[in-house]
Amino acid sequence: MRVAGRHRLSIEAAPDGATIIDQTRLPFALEWLTLRTLAEAAHAISSMQVRGAPLIGVTAAYGVALALSQNPDDVSLSEAITLLGATRPTAVNLHWALMRVQQFVTPLPPSARAEAAWQEARMIAEEDAAQCRRIGEVGLLQLREIAEKSGRLRIMTHCNAGWLATVDYGTALAPIYAAHDSGINVHVWVSETRPRNQGLLTAWELKQHGVPHTLIADNAAGFLLMRQEVDAVIVGADRIAANGDVANKVGTCMKALAARDAGVPFFVAAPRSTIDFDCASGDDIPIEERDGDELRLIKGVDTDGVAGEIRLIPADTAVCNPAFDITPARLVTAIVTERGACPASRNGLLRLFPEMTNV
Amino acid sequence: MRVAGRHRLSIEAAPDGATIIDQTRLPFALEWLTLRTLAEAAHAISSMQVRGAPLIGVTAAYGVALALSQNPDDVSLSEAITLLGATRPTAVNLHWALMRVQQFVTPLPPSARAEAAWQEARMIAEEDAAQCRRIGEVGLLQLREIAEKSGRLRIMTHCNAGWLATVDYGTALAPIYAAHDSGINVHVWVSETRPRNQGLLTAWELKQHGVPHTLIADNAAGFLLMRQEVDAVIVGADRIAANGDVANKVGTCMKALAARDAGVPFFVAAPRSTIDFDCASGDDIPIEERDGDELRLIKGVDTDGVAGEIRLIPADTAVCNPAFDITPARLVTAIVTERGACPASRNGLLRLFPEMTNV
Repeated sequence: MRVAGRHRLSIEAAPDGATIIDQTRLPFALEWLTLRTLAEAAHAISSMQVRGAPLIGVTAAYGVALALSQNPDDVSLSEAITLLGATRPTAVNLHWALMRVQQFVTPLPPSARAEAAWQEARMIAEEDAAQCRRIGEVGLLQLREIAEKSGRLRIMTHCNAGWLATVDYGTALAPIYAAHDSGINVHVWVSETRPRNQGLLTAWELKQHGVPHTLIADNAAGFLLMRQEVDAVIVGADRIAANGDVANKVGTCMKALAARDAGVPFFVAAPRSTIDFDCASGDDIPIEERDGDELRLIKGVDTDGVAGEIRLIPADTAVCNPAFDITPARLVTAIVTERGACPASRNGLLRLFPEMTNV
Repeated sequence: MRVAGRHRLSIEAAPDGATIIDQTRLPFALEWLTLRTLAEAAHAISSMQVRGAPLIGVTAAYGVALALSQNPDDVSLSEAITLLGATRPTAVNLHWALMRVQQFVTPLPPSARAEAAWQEARMIAEEDAAQCRRIGEVGLLQLREIAEKSGRLRIMTHCNAGWLATVDYGTALAPIYAAHDSGINVHVWVSETRPRNQGLLTAWELKQHGVPHTLIADNAAGFLLMRQEVDAVIVGADRIAANGDVANKVGTCMKALAARDAGVPFFVAAPRSTIDFDCASGDDIPIEERDGDELRLIKGVDTDGVAGEIRLIPADTAVCNPAFDITPARLVTAIVTERGACPASRNGLLRLFPEMTNV
């Protein structure tokens, strides 16, 4: 991604830590922040300074490296894995990345572990960027076919599955960037994504890249789909079960239902690390419930542009705040991965990832 | 409704005008406001100090009475009708009420028109309250049947179709109040209803009445429905076409799709004045698009409880803000009216309202 004229990644190894964008300050301020301890890495994930399944995984990997670089009396490898693994329950990339670093460093002598963890975290980050780039190319094939029918491409997405949610390129947004860059006339409907409003991150990203877009209330998605104002829906995923059921940001499943009703294709874009063959179906995926104050209090800026917060909902109003929902595989047109697109089914996934057969 | 210990209506004739609750100040402040001129009545509707199809109709009727009580050189009857008719395009009750007052006063000598308009406006208000009360009784029959199966009643609603949206009782909320009052163990899922957050009005209403409820982001509705956490959905309507298609607050149609997918009944509660036999289907219903700043700026209170506003979305972000959507008749289990419940179809509606056959 290009930010302020130079190529950056959404997470970068720094001499004394890992540098991230504090995404809670976007879209009004672009602030880089260096995570220097395990605790800071865990806080960055749980407070959603970083979010998006792939970026959560990479941040957790760097978190292990940070832990192993601290005084070994302070924290053990297993304590670090436990702490980081408990930050967010739904995105499976978190556990995938933690296990990968753990398996890589465990056989090594303690003195070599920190350096190895840094190396593996950087490797996971580089692989993620390469996979997302490839997801863009694979998704472009799908989108080009749709665009050729009408000469334009009106896409709807949900939440943020762009480069802010990954290391670079994004998952759902990678094909959109690829389509725009290839000269297709793209317009994106960006849903606000209450309660955390990650649609604002998507609008900010699309603006940096010059992709035309319009923000809508989440409620307006059904209206636009049923009025045939959308040619395709494409979203990311936090976990894909073995049968193709998809856990993604809450609100996704209603978009999938409306897309199905309107005859609009519904794509899910995600790398291998988001697929969890240990979950037979969406019923097995834990759904995070977050603090009700995410709904009650709204962050923004005042008339002078100063960051602030306002209370939208009285403190004594009971709130239920699930962060994800499950889109049944039957509503998904295709899953777009770095190895190609496939039907949302066990057979479809295994055709692309045959090495998972024995899981 | 009981407010501060006494029975009030959401709009009441006053010696020098019509008294309303300024609903833009709820849930943090309950402020009564007397509309004294045609312009104030038109502003109250367009700025959503009053909202909800039945209340919009009654307020417009009082607006005509206010116009006819002003200096007759200032404004003619037809000018008043035109001004009020242009305030909101979707709710058909507005035009129904204006036409009714116009037809009632037009044959009268000019000197008698103002008094007649006040009389007719009060009559419309009284009829609305009586109809909503009856909608509560009719809807209770439907809800009681559902509650008897499980011993409890978990209802989902959208927007506000309570007494704040009518003169008293409400449309969608009338059966909920009736169920609660009859001893049924009721809990209500209240969706926030971005961008204007009328779910906060519903939560406030339910709290006044002691009905247990939980507020959710609009995005969470699909999750709860598909997880079988809801026994019935019940919403109001802004206009019902002759074929049973329903225009209601944007976001409604995705709830209807999710309810259908989950096998949960989806009820629409509305009086005769919301049914528009001149619209053959939902395609003929105009959908209001409102200012994008409704999304961009959030009203609430600061930490001291003082009313304020914060910018959520940058001013230069393009926004699309449709206020309503169309739920196809095929997704509606029944329409609940003051004359009984019927299938959402031309035949169903005509069985209850045979006098409309020749429209």
